Amino acid sequence: MRATTSSLTPFFSPTGVAIIGASLDPTKLGYGLSRNLVQSGFHGAIHFVNLKGGTLLGRSIHKSISVVPDPVDLAVLLIPAEAIPQSLKECGERGIRAVIIMAGGFRETGSEGAALEEECLEIARKYDLRLLGPNCIGLVDTHLPLDTTFLSPPGPTPGDVAFISHSGAICAAVIDWARGQGFGLSRMVSLGNQADVNETDVLAPIAADPYTNVLTLYLEGVSDGRRFVKEAKKVTCKKPIIAIKVGRFESGQRAVTSHTGALAGQESAFNAAFHRAGVIRVETSEELFDWARALAWCKLPTGRGVGVLTNAGGPGVTAADALESHGLHIANLVPATQKALRNQLSSAASTHNPVDMLAAATPQQYANCLRILLDDPGVHSAMVILPPPPMHTAGGVAKAVIPVIFSSEKPVVIALMGERLIQEAVEHFRAARVPEYRFPERAAAALSILAKRAEYLAHIMDQESSPPEMPLNVKTKDVITILNEFNQTFANDKHEYLPNDVTCRVLNAYGISTLPLTLATTPEEASELAKQAGFPVVLKLASPEISHKSDVGGVLLNLNNASQVKRGFEIITQNVRKKKPKAKIQGIRVQRMLPEGQEVIIGVIQDPQFGPLVMFGSGGVEVEGLKDVEFALAPLSRKEASRLIEDTWAGKKLRGYRNIPAADRESVLDALLRVSQLAIDFPTIAEIEINPMRVLSNGQGAFAVDVRARLKKQNNSH
Amino acid sequence: MRATTSSLTPFFSPTGVAIIGASLDPTKLGYGLSRNLVQSGFHGAIHFVNLKGGTLLGRSIHKSISVVPDPVDLAVLLIPAEAIPQSLKECGERGIRAVIIMAGGFRETGSEGAALEEECLEIARKYDLRLLGPNCIGLVDTHLPLDTTFLSPPGPTPGDVAFISHSGAICAAVIDWARGQGFGLSRMVSLGNQADVNETDVLAPIAADPYTNVLTLYLEGVSDGRRFVKEAKKVTCKKPIIAIKVGRFESGQRAVTSHTGALAGQESAFNAAFHRAGVIRVETSEELFDWARALAWCKLPTGRGVGVLTNAGGPGVTAADALESHGLHIANLVPATQKALRNQLSSAASTHNPVDMLAAATPQQYANCLRILLDDPGVHSAMVILPPPPMHTAGGVAKAVIPVIFSSEKPVVIALMGERLIQEAVEHFRAARVPEYRFPERAAAALSILAKRAEYLAHIMDQESSPPEMPLNVKTKDVITILNEFNQTFANDKHEYLPNDVTCRVLNAYGISTLPLTLATTPEEASELAKQAGFPVVLKLASPEISHKSDVGGVLLNLNNASQVKRGFEIITQNVRKKKPKAKIQGIRVQRMLPEGQEVIIGVIQDPQFGPLVMFGSGGVEVEGLKDVEFALAPLSRKEASRLIEDTWAGKKLRGYRNIPAADRESVLDALLRVSQLAIDFPTIAEIEINPMRVLSNGQGAFAVDVRARLKKQNNSH
Repeated sequence: MRATTSSLTPFFSPTGVAIIGASLDPTKLGYGLSRNLVQSGFHGAIHFVNLKGGTLLGRSIHKSISVVPDPVDLAVLLIPAEAIPQSLKECGERGIRAVIIMAGGFRETGSEGAALEEECLEIARKYDLRLLGPNCIGLVDTHLPLDTTFLSPPGPTPGDVAFISHSGAICAAVIDWARGQGFGLSRMVSLGNQADVNETDVLAPIAADPYTNVLTLYLEGVSDGRRFVKEAKKVTCKKPIIAIKVGRFESGQRAVTSHTGALAGQESAFNAAFHRAGVIRVETSEELFDWARALAWCKLPTGRGVGVLTNAGGPGVTAADALESHGLHIANLVPATQKALRNQLSSAASTHNPVDMLAAATPQQYANCLRILLDDPGVHSAMVILPPPPMHTAGGVAKAVIPVIFSSEKPVVIALMGERLIQEAVEHFRAARVPEYRFPERAAAALSILAKRAEYLAHIMDQESSPPEMPLNVKTKDVITILNEFNQTFANDKHEYLPNDVTCRVLNAYGISTLPLTLATTPEEASELAKQAGFPVVLKLASPEISHKSDVGGVLLNLNNASQVKRGFEIITQNVRKKKPKAKIQGIRVQRMLPEGQEVIIGVIQDPQFGPLVMFGSGGVEVEGLKDVEFALAPLSRKEASRLIEDTWAGKKLRGYRNIPAADRESVLDALLRVSQLAIDFPTIAEIEINPMRVLSNGQGAFAVDVRARLKKQNNSH
Repeated sequence: MRATTSSLTPFFSPTGVAIIGASLDPTKLGYGLSRNLVQSGFHGAIHFVNLKGGTLLGRSIHKSISVVPDPVDLAVLLIPAEAIPQSLKECGERGIRAVIIMAGGFRETGSEGAALEEECLEIARKYDLRLLGPNCIGLVDTHLPLDTTFLSPPGPTPGDVAFISHSGAICAAVIDWARGQGFGLSRMVSLGNQADVNETDVLAPIAADPYTNVLTLYLEGVSDGRRFVKEAKKVTCKKPIIAIKVGRFESGQRAVTSHTGALAGQESAFNAAFHRAGVIRVETSEELFDWARALAWCKLPTGRGVGVLTNAGGPGVTAADALESHGLHIANLVPATQKALRNQLSSAASTHNPVDMLAAATPQQYANCLRILLDDPGVHSAMVILPPPPMHTAGGVAKAVIPVIFSSEKPVVIALMGERLIQEAVEHFRAARVPEYRFPERAAAALSILAKRAEYLAHIMDQESSPPEMPLNVKTKDVITILNEFNQTFANDKHEYLPNDVTCRVLNAYGISTLPLTLATTPEEASELAKQAGFPVVLKLASPEISHKSDVGGVLLNLNNASQVKRGFEIITQNVRKKKPKAKIQGIRVQRMLPEGQEVIIGVIQDPQFGPLVMFGSGGVEVEGLKDVEFALAPLSRKEASRLIEDTWAGKKLRGYRNIPAADRESVLDALLRVSQLAIDFPTIAEIEINPMRVLSNGQGAFAVDVRARLKKQNNSH
């Protein structure tokens, strides 16, 4: 059952709502729910249902859903879990198409509850019902208006921030907290167990709400990662989404069989997914709404230059630190700006940015200087800092600067410092929908998020206007053949790893250069193969049971002639016999040794949620120690691959650094695209890792020196 | 003029205060100041001084300070800058020993103001006066009580957090903001320009205040870094100090002549200094007081295990994430705890940590479960999470849990989520001095700071009970001789760099192994020196004008015989001629090539504020790219050196990692101690850098392969 916007319509604009479990007892949630729906001012029909009948809030209570008159398209079930299946059937018979189930006692309580939840879902499928919940507190639309929660009044203040949450308790807290923070909500959805409707389903209908300027999400995970990315991306092109994702320390461990697997935690996948979808991730609940207010209320800046206006030096320095630490910069003011400021201010004031008007600054000086600052071409946004002014009221300053903020195309946020002495100013700014924060640090973070949002939209436009990328020249059919051969050969084998030569052939078919790695079973054969490969050569242990060959002394470098190769064969054999006496040795592999170059790692792992996750970074044996790696979701565009490279030290170094000569960055970029494509085309490949990839000097290419690939387990039929 | 606590006594417990510049006009600051002092309830004598005379607040105004009767030991000057010198003289004549100067117009306005400030300081020296300010808003003691500010009332609420600030505006904001956050201040000092009394001077007198539980600092820098560290450390053994240090993006660039210099920004020095002094550094103003409340009000935990009690799953998960991200862990509850919890709760509730009592949890269940949780041996501290409970009031929960918190030896903090619905609970917790925070994230940070404080105190006790460290066997006199020789030889030379052989001799005198690096001026001489050193050898360019020799092709490795050495000599010469045609080539240095090993960097730079700053980390050419370095102030104890090593990947690797064999960590630790000692003993050495230091396998030692040392400039006589 896949969400379509139309099947969710009764949740967001019902014509009639039936509350099943309405109660006459004011201490019961069934009373609170009835009261909230009536008091919300909902314009459609309201029906109460309870076996006991009676009259509630001036309406007679129906004894059964079957007798509820038209119109009715949404039912809210506030009855015990065990009564839900029967009630759902009755809703279905009555022709209701959307049901909110509030009760707990389902999947969250164990297997019995899970069975009950499954039963409900089957009934819903049969009657073509959509379900919100169970184990949720319903939804709210402050503009329709509609309130299907049982929370104690007052309900949420109308506003422009939508909130979608996996946790009902957090909904309740946010409604209450938002009021204190001075912003309102447009829509709020408590998703509960998501037996049917999930976080992805509601994105489009909520984004379509004209009153919603920004969507905020509290996520404990996502139900279908790839669909989430796709749907969220559609939304973020138009309206910002900000998400807090919790549960990072609960996530199960992956089976760690490669560097990529060890480093690609669930959080890397979420970060890559949010990045791809344009979803802004926050770390704390306060940031979620600090940033939402700024995004809901402010224009977007056209650059990262900030003007800071203050009446005291200390907070100005604090603001400058915070802005720089968020990647914004204190704009250099042009001479005309400084001259105009000087005309407004005393000689002791600073007309350099941060502009310090000194403690005696009047409301009019605040307004005039802000106007001048906003006129400076290098100022793309502004922060006004307002500690309690010793000579004037903060409220007076607020009244003076608000018209200036309204008349500018540039965003302005306020750092109001204090409590009682700034209350009047707080109220003015909130009424005018100008974001105010208690200290410069939070105001700086809000400005930075505006800049990032502007840059994201520019990036989207840039993407849309870019010519389509040339398809990579890859031999998909060859890989199908190679994998089929492998599966036939090893059909009954438990090993999931592809042999090195098979992996090389797969990579070669996708245009990635590897180093031929031939297998010798005797010292003489090794010496012969070395002559064919060309000296110097490397010898590497071949044993499917040993994945980290260097650990057991299984690698020898730089062997320059036949006798060194023969001797090397024996040394490796002895080393392995000593350290892993039981390991089966297939032989010793021989490989030509490449010239010096830089070493990088390229890996892909199939994330269970989001599909192929590409890793790039510093290669070699220290990968996990240095952790100089970054992740992105496949498929990668050239630009995305380039960004991935630049985000690591390994990638920056490819352009050359001090006495490290530049290397063939283009070949690395190309290899990233090809590995990414391979993972997209062959989801049966669970992991591929090239480590190291030796990157030679410009134009000389990049070679996969060692490779690993693992197939999904055969018995894993999902 | 060095602060002694006794000379500062009149600031903190004056017997009589004179306000010079008292005003009858209620719109003037001179009126506000007089009013605040009277209304503060100060028990000593209060004198008003103004040329115009008159009567103010029931007291007659003296026309001159000279006629003010006893007792009077503190004067507050609220008169224009230009009138200050004369007034200071009169204060001195009158026998006053402490003066607060509030006016601006001094050093902060330029050279003229600086001269006026210097004049004031000279007068103060002459009369043995101590000065607070100028350009400050005075000080407050809420318990004495005493209020010498001119801020609009109400003044600060009495409490147990002291605040010391370089910014007066931030003092004003903090007084107002603290009231809204529900904590009080004990003492507050606005330091202004610090012509005399600075941030270090006031630490001891403020820490001596019995009402002060924690000191908070807003710093824009420190006046004397080494003294600050010493004085702060004395305080932090008894009371915590928390500091926000701003101005990081304003700090001037150092002259960058080494990796150490490039990486050792002012912030590294501050971080190392705060670490050494036990000062807790915060990044934001809100953290400063979030953490101060916890430290002022809570007992300290004996470990990092946390119990979380919640009535909803979502906030519990959020708390778990935040706790883990701060290095705390969710305690595993023993079976007895889980059984006791089960007796209190419904079967659907979770008795695993975080303990989720579900939405219907009663105040009594909160109290009982908290008591059980606090009795668990693995629970060292607890967080109680309280979103607006749907069935009960948050205030009721607060009343029920406060007695449990009081009766436990373990710290408990509260995450109260919401606004109106939690107001009553907020008031109960504040009255009981139980720290409450709006979301679990901030509560988690507060718990982590309690654990860190406890660990710091344990570390101090451990240090005090440790046997004194054995003195290093170093030849200080030899170094004196070597440096004297150098100074005589190069007396008129502008080069500050010590020649390589001199640097090696200095390091050798301090027991650090170097590789002899001999100078050849012809290919033949190089080949002869190579034979003496033993093959293989390295050749390195010798040119004082080129500091990064690899950059110009000035290094050749692994030369195995005389003819390779001769040829190498010519290659390097050609490379340098090509890349730096004007550089003077002294010759080519010859050095024996060591076996493989790990490479680290050890550096010391004389920080202008804090003295020698030691750096350790990953060595080689990528030092600045990898930034795997940490800093500490010299001198280092063995434990501190060991911590410095462990804090880097390079250091962890010394113990061995995967196929990287362990290296001689002890030799590295020893070298760190010796370099640190050298920098302490010879402050004329501005910088020493060993990069790389080659660390051989265990017991084989660590060798300084390349070394650099720079002396302080001769003309720098400060």
